[in-house]
Amino acid sequence: MSSFRIERKAAGSEGRLGLLTTAHGQIHTPAFVAVATRGTVRAADPRDLLAVGVQALIGNTYHLVLRPGAEMVGEQGGLHRFSGWSGPWMTDSGGYQVFSLGAGKEHGVGKVASVFPGDKNPRPQGKSLVRLSEQGAVFRSVLDGSWVTFTPESVIRAQRLLGADIVLPLDECTSPWHSREYTAQACERTHRWAERALAAWNEDGRCLPQSDQTLYGIVQGGAYEDLRRRSARFIADLGFPGVAVGGSLGRSKEEMFQVLRWVSEELPHNVPRHLLGIGSLEDIVEAVRRGIDTFDCAAPTRMARNGTLLSLGERSGRLSIRSARFRNDRGPVDPSCDCPVCAEHSRAFLHHLLRAGELTYYRLATLHNLRTMVRFMEHIRALLAEGRSPDRKELLPT
Amino acid sequence: MSSFRIERKAAGSEGRLGLLTTAHGQIHTPAFVAVATRGTVRAADPRDLLAVGVQALIGNTYHLVLRPGAEMVGEQGGLHRFSGWSGPWMTDSGGYQVFSLGAGKEHGVGKVASVFPGDKNPRPQGKSLVRLSEQGAVFRSVLDGSWVTFTPESVIRAQRLLGADIVLPLDECTSPWHSREYTAQACERTHRWAERALAAWNEDGRCLPQSDQTLYGIVQGGAYEDLRRRSARFIADLGFPGVAVGGSLGRSKEEMFQVLRWVSEELPHNVPRHLLGIGSLEDIVEAVRRGIDTFDCAAPTRMARNGTLLSLGERSGRLSIRSARFRNDRGPVDPSCDCPVCAEHSRAFLHHLLRAGELTYYRLATLHNLRTMVRFMEHIRALLAEGRSPDRKELLPT
Repeated sequence: MSSFRIERKAAGSEGRLGLLTTAHGQIHTPAFVAVATRGTVRAADPRDLLAVGVQALIGNTYHLVLRPGAEMVGEQGGLHRFSGWSGPWMTDSGGYQVFSLGAGKEHGVGKVASVFPGDKNPRPQGKSLVRLSEQGAVFRSVLDGSWVTFTPESVIRAQRLLGADIVLPLDECTSPWHSREYTAQACERTHRWAERALAAWNEDGRCLPQSDQTLYGIVQGGAYEDLRRRSARFIADLGFPGVAVGGSLGRSKEEMFQVLRWVSEELPHNVPRHLLGIGSLEDIVEAVRRGIDTFDCAAPTRMARNGTLLSLGERSGRLSIRSARFRNDRGPVDPSCDCPVCAEHSRAFLHHLLRAGELTYYRLATLHNLRTMVRFMEHIRALLAEGRSPDRKELLPT
Repeated sequence: MSSFRIERKAAGSEGRLGLLTTAHGQIHTPAFVAVATRGTVRAADPRDLLAVGVQALIGNTYHLVLRPGAEMVGEQGGLHRFSGWSGPWMTDSGGYQVFSLGAGKEHGVGKVASVFPGDKNPRPQGKSLVRLSEQGAVFRSVLDGSWVTFTPESVIRAQRLLGADIVLPLDECTSPWHSREYTAQACERTHRWAERALAAWNEDGRCLPQSDQTLYGIVQGGAYEDLRRRSARFIADLGFPGVAVGGSLGRSKEEMFQVLRWVSEELPHNVPRHLLGIGSLEDIVEAVRRGIDTFDCAAPTRMARNGTLLSLGERSGRLSIRSARFRNDRGPVDPSCDCPVCAEHSRAFLHHLLRAGELTYYRLATLHNLRTMVRFMEHIRALLAEGRSPDRKELLPT
């Protein structure tokens, strides 16, 4: 089982420098966990990830169960052996897919409604592919349209086979457009599922080989103060050695930061906290100030593939490498960056590769963006190591 | 200008061990030159190529002129600086596109007609996108449909700007279905274009910075003995310091090997010979025996992307990693291979990545296939270093 030590607390915020020790290595926190949905970070390989300083990966139980299958990964010796990434692994439970393939489609939103600025109402984007009941979630497979059942117990079994160091129970991730009443019901159900997951965990815990795994709890409750506070206390009382914050984070950044404050105030200090699916640089700074230790987010790698490269030297924090203004630009993506891409390639070359549709582009862009996330977390840890709170104005270009 | 030294000749064949020295490094021959059409080997980067032992790359003037443009690459300091590959570069002239976008489409064939086994006649696959005249070739751009003119002189100018170490004059690559009469006319035109290229080369050679470049000649003549012999003598007499064998190589492997023997008999021994676009393991062995020093071929990297992995341990020399039989296979792609992919990843993982459409797959597969080509050339050179001729039965699984 993993352990967590707080090495230094910041003055003036809940920020803390920590060390999370898992069976497959240590994670210096606050840390960014790279998203490897189907067992690999898209376009990168384990050697690449080590080279840019990635400390841990998060895979997705829903996607891995559909393909190649949890049993198959288990037969191959688990995710570490199968994927070649022998450092710390996390696996998400499938709870996010309850949302993204369900209400997220029906409501046309992300975890924070304001990802579509100006939206005041839901804008349906499709039909739900999920049926929820007390028993669990039934999904329509994105691969072949068949129905697949996930229960709190089956998700624990699957994650035992996948063998990640940190695993999560099945939860219901709600939408920012769900009513207070629905959010409260979903939250209560998530709590009952957490109890069932824990029961399955303790039952299985002694008989299966992967006894080095740690089960985190997930706090839900949307952007409602009483629900979030109650959920945080409930999950903490169940004694999970780590806690993830999931579900709707409201309709604005302000609501998200409030949610984190409420949760932080209810949780025991010595428990590591993971924020699911959030990862813009600005959000990370604010979340660290509210006591979050680890983050995962697909955006930095997805943005890379779409042509958006992070640059701590740019005003906006990013540049669109497809833009004609980079056609003849001999400079590196980010002059302050120490990644192999910035050391050896120009903006003009990356612009050319993306325009030409060359596969080489996707990996180089991914490595640069990941390195930028890693460097950003290093900056934050350096401040915390001095007892200082990370500050948006100090860390981000203005 | 590059220089070539024959270090050892084989007994019993025309095979030779050589050392080709360019302004950007040495190439131990016989060597496989990796195809980097638009300035990059698809899915790989320069560090990858060094890691698997690739010695040289070949880019394509036609594609690079269309995008990003020869002037632009020139402004960036040439292909070496622009691409980050600082070892030897070659550039093909666009002559292959005269064929592949022209008669190749009309006749529905590759350079060896038998790539479509059993074909006895042309099978048209589309309309030619090329208009040929004594002046040069006019192409319809694959990017925007506009017409682009290539002349022997413009192709030299473009390659001066691209700055490859070894460059090729514009030629007309004929189809195996062209008549003897047409092939003879095209061959004569190629000779006149070679003279014009050489005139442009010597005129420009003193005034542009890239004086370290070498212009090879190209031998044409299809699969007709008298035409091939005459073309080889003509090109040799023009004093090119290197010679490439281009165009139709007939309608069978046997015809191809005969063509190589005719050409080899006519060429001076001390001139390095490049075989354009050929690169199956079997063909390479036979071509080395007929005095070929360097090869380029897109097949090993294209096959990788399509799921065909080379394996010197397999009977067929390859395996289709998409096949269900590899779903649970924990072994490496090729137990005899020393590449990073075989060291760290299983067939099951690569199977999963390809099935899941993960970008990571394409690079790993590419690196493995390139490493296999490099190892194969190393085996051939090891035999030649002992004065032995490479032998198909000894080198290839049966």
